Amino acid sequence: MDKEKLIIKAFANPINGDDGAVVDGYCYSKDLFCENVHFKRSWMSLEQIGAKAMLVNISDAIVMNSTPKYVLLGLSLPKDISFDEVKKLQNGLLKEAKKFDIQIIGGDTISDDKINISLTLISKINQKAIYRKGLKKGDLLAFSGKLGDSIKGLKILQNGFFLHSNHRSIRPNLKQKFFYDIAKKIRVSMDISDGLNKDLSRMLAINRLSVTFLKKLNFFELNSAEEYEILFAFDKKYKAYIKNMAKKHRVKLNIFAKTKTGRYKYYGKEHHF
Amino acid sequence: MDKEKLIIKAFANPINGDDGAVVDGYCYSKDLFCENVHFKRSWMSLEQIGAKAMLVNISDAIVMNSTPKYVLLGLSLPKDISFDEVKKLQNGLLKEAKKFDIQIIGGDTISDDKINISLTLISKINQKAIYRKGLKKGDLLAFSGKLGDSIKGLKILQNGFFLHSNHRSIRPNLKQKFFYDIAKKIRVSMDISDGLNKDLSRMLAINRLSVTFLKKLNFFELNSAEEYEILFAFDKKYKAYIKNMAKKHRVKLNIFAKTKTGRYKYYGKEHHF
Repeated sequence: MDKEKLIIKAFANPINGDDGAVVDGYCYSKDLFCENVHFKRSWMSLEQIGAKAMLVNISDAIVMNSTPKYVLLGLSLPKDISFDEVKKLQNGLLKEAKKFDIQIIGGDTISDDKINISLTLISKINQKAIYRKGLKKGDLLAFSGKLGDSIKGLKILQNGFFLHSNHRSIRPNLKQKFFYDIAKKIRVSMDISDGLNKDLSRMLAINRLSVTFLKKLNFFELNSAEEYEILFAFDKKYKAYIKNMAKKHRVKLNIFAKTKTGRYKYYGKEHHF
Repeated sequence: MDKEKLIIKAFANPINGDDGAVVDGYCYSKDLFCENVHFKRSWMSLEQIGAKAMLVNISDAIVMNSTPKYVLLGLSLPKDISFDEVKKLQNGLLKEAKKFDIQIIGGDTISDDKINISLTLISKINQKAIYRKGLKKGDLLAFSGKLGDSIKGLKILQNGFFLHSNHRSIRPNLKQKFFYDIAKKIRVSMDISDGLNKDLSRMLAINRLSVTFLKKLNFFELNSAEEYEILFAFDKKYKAYIKNMAKKHRVKLNIFAKTKTGRYKYYGKEHHF
């Protein structure tokens, strides 16, 4: 039994399924970031934990083509956390909020047994929202950046070693400027949080399409979760435009597949550490 | 050190402090409802847990004079929970959402070690939002319903006994119809979640006012938390109108104090079980 699937199915309605829900010109997204589920305290500093909680939420807003404006914070803090530690966690959250010009408008804080962060982001849709649905046959599929480092980073952390503060497992590298610039030419998009293969499968399933791969992707590129790069598609006539924009923003662009009719099957095997 | 105070202070900004945050005609509220913090699984059924999680959030929206429209669900579920149990929890959440005509638009679900529910409610402001601030000298203070049962119920639960499914510790009894009807005459309001004495103190502190009590309140009325009744104030010229409305909606009305200048001190002692 896959409990998440079960719940999603039970709660299914027309505006579920995307990284955020669009209502009245705003995009609403909610993510949980929980100790011993998404991170261990030995892996990163409290400031980094706060920052990452904020960034993984902002990632959802970006791929829907919306600009984060407000955030509600739900914080569970362990009873033994010190004043200084709370300050550090706050600093991480506040610094990223400030960088993205996001106002904290409320929330709830409780004492519990570990650090659980639940953020709700309220983002203004830029021109039009971009969803996962809307892919057309013949569209080109691309992802931003370089995939694979997150899965490698996780392995390093699990083995008790540390990562540089700029490693994407510590600090997702969001590409909002690039994406906002190309958004008007984009058909569908989502962030790569569960691995390209899984996320691509979902996108193709929703759109009842398959793909022809234009290049070979390796195991790490296909299976690395929590990359927070952007998976997106566009009409092939915009290829040159998007390539130019990637160049302008110094973002690595990987046009890796073309959609076709049919049903997509997992490319390669799933792998769990 | 009071961690919640510290965090609230650190995150303070002009739209914090109320039960919800008002932005662009909507009220946003977020509450955590967590196992072994807010409830024990032995106290109530999973359906009741789901229902109460929804109701305590709806309570925030009501006292801001807003109508709940959408909800985002953050669910942590223990790994050993069964399919049937998830269904029951869902039923509780969904039934209340349906009753209040609230659409579930998204969220996040994870496997963790216990049931933690984090809800974000998006509510449309009715005519104008009602805040905690805005109280004037000479205003009458009132609360709806009967206070005191929640603290007694908690004691019964803690002693290993059970409560009737209609007991307010199991199922808050919200008074939205009454409140929406009187809202245009109301100066300030909040729900009674931490006990009348504590909540009144907060309201008076924000407004830099004190009160003269018009009737004697007992220990239980003053200190019972999680009542989810409404604490509100109005100009004395609306007294007859509000009394009539209470009668119409069959809501017990308690006009218990009148505001005056000065600084309010706790009425009676704080008490923790």
